[in-house]
Amino acid sequence: MTAEFALIQRYFSDPDVLRPDVLLGVGDDCAVLSPPAGKQLLVSMDTLNSGVHFFADVDPFTLGHKSLAVGLSDLAAMGAEPAWATLALSLPAVDDDWLEAFAQGFAQLAQRYQVQLIGGDTTRGALSISVQVHGFAVNRGLRRSAARAGDLIYVSGTLGDAALALHQYKQSGRPQAALMQRLQQPQPRVELGLAIADFAHACIDLSDGLTADLGHILSASQLGASIHQPDLPLSAPVRRHVEQTTDWSLPLSGGDDYELCFTLPPAQQSRLEALRPELDCELTCIGRIEAHTGLRLTTLDAGTQTISPAGYQHFRESV
Amino acid sequence: MTAEFALIQRYFSDPDVLRPDVLLGVGDDCAVLSPPAGKQLLVSMDTLNSGVHFFADVDPFTLGHKSLAVGLSDLAAMGAEPAWATLALSLPAVDDDWLEAFAQGFAQLAQRYQVQLIGGDTTRGALSISVQVHGFAVNRGLRRSAARAGDLIYVSGTLGDAALALHQYKQSGRPQAALMQRLQQPQPRVELGLAIADFAHACIDLSDGLTADLGHILSASQLGASIHQPDLPLSAPVRRHVEQTTDWSLPLSGGDDYELCFTLPPAQQSRLEALRPELDCELTCIGRIEAHTGLRLTTLDAGTQTISPAGYQHFRESV
Repeated sequence: MTAEFALIQRYFSDPDVLRPDVLLGVGDDCAVLSPPAGKQLLVSMDTLNSGVHFFADVDPFTLGHKSLAVGLSDLAAMGAEPAWATLALSLPAVDDDWLEAFAQGFAQLAQRYQVQLIGGDTTRGALSISVQVHGFAVNRGLRRSAARAGDLIYVSGTLGDAALALHQYKQSGRPQAALMQRLQQPQPRVELGLAIADFAHACIDLSDGLTADLGHILSASQLGASIHQPDLPLSAPVRRHVEQTTDWSLPLSGGDDYELCFTLPPAQQSRLEALRPELDCELTCIGRIEAHTGLRLTTLDAGTQTISPAGYQHFRESV
Repeated sequence: MTAEFALIQRYFSDPDVLRPDVLLGVGDDCAVLSPPAGKQLLVSMDTLNSGVHFFADVDPFTLGHKSLAVGLSDLAAMGAEPAWATLALSLPAVDDDWLEAFAQGFAQLAQRYQVQLIGGDTTRGALSISVQVHGFAVNRGLRRSAARAGDLIYVSGTLGDAALALHQYKQSGRPQAALMQRLQQPQPRVELGLAIADFAHACIDLSDGLTADLGHILSASQLGASIHQPDLPLSAPVRRHVEQTTDWSLPLSGGDDYELCFTLPPAQQSRLEALRPELDCELTCIGRIEAHTGLRLTTLDAGTQTISPAGYQHFRESV
């Protein structure tokens, strides 16, 4: 038995998540799976690297959570139901305490959505985590390219919290705990994605920042949008920061919030309103899709200006 | 458009591989796939790290090839038909020449088996490559656990070539080119895996070395085996090395050959023989599965000895 195999078996076998569509999980050359008939399979792979996506001394429990959360957020953005995950974990050395905490953070979130870890690879190397998630959807899921002129633009939760946590960390080393939780343990909006899958048009998750990610919807849909800055949903700390600095760049272009941004025809607004009581996140209409390309921002004092999508660039910034 | 997205689009879009079962490839939060009805989905994920699995100055073309080959070899070992791949690529910096060569090596092998790259992630970090492959099989594929007492044990190709290349590289820095090709550009035995899927019992690919990988079959099947050392298929350079050193550890426990080791009932031997003309690799019977647990090795001079499975341990050795 190789170290690789033993590590996966030891830390990542979770008897609490055993799905009937997993015919063979960890332990052979491949996992063997039985996707449901009549649905599409959706997959997404994300990598988190030490020093780029997280600090080397990050709490491994929260890192385990986030490693899975970013993928579940991609499934949520397509309106898909999570099912399986694979994990490629590169570690400088085997550290039992670290691995146990990482596995617990991963497993806690996996249990919530009954996501079974079906395989992966553990190797020696600089600390790096790649997770692929697999889920199911009907009608090919929600697409970035499906926005239509006249659609209302909604976001879930609040914007800029994760970026403010990072800002505070860099400034003082003492970020507010609630903000750090938003940065380190984002809650993927799985229930929301499933709830709107039938009637929303376009959807994306906010990993790179509102303007960058909404920009993806606009370019894929070949449309434009206007957003109304005063309507952006802000937590109390971000609102204070914006008021003190008059700088809106955190909610506009800060990454890592993992909220959903979606568009829907005005006729479906009442259907969305009816969902509110069952969802554990706020929903805020922030603007409208328009035929004229470009992203326009309306502010209280400066009128309307055209802004360029700017967000997290993987080869430019780091944590 | 983020750097991540642009990089994947720029280097890894291959118009020569467009499969009808890919409803949406790179460019949204998830890829959307349509697995075939009546078959199982098989997946495997492997990581290659700089300094552990390859030298930092490795030819990027061969690295692109090998990154996909190791996964296709896992599919081959289960008798599965390759279909899709995802790629998580961490790079210290964007190097256009390097990326182009890597993508070409990946694409050349992908085209051969019509494997479509459907997504992934490119991030900044220490050079690290994780590839997940996806394929289809009927009857759950070939399993490690399916060996039966009395089965004949076969291996494809020759054993120890990759390990000898590494040995020569470490000794002199000038390994033989043919051996280096075996180390850097292994040929996954996809056709062989598919050909024997109907009648072989257990199968595994030789990534960690013959005794370690055959050991996986034995422990999964709760059986033992005898192998006849003089029958191990050796290339001319490995045969010379063994004769000069009287050390059989390269063919017995050297990793990275990516040949298949499989077991089949003697009654199916003629069916295997009939396949030989269509296959581009040798097939050699090296021993037999036995009810008595343990791995026994018969040599010409020393009789029979019991050996322990030893092979590549990911947290102990490096390139």
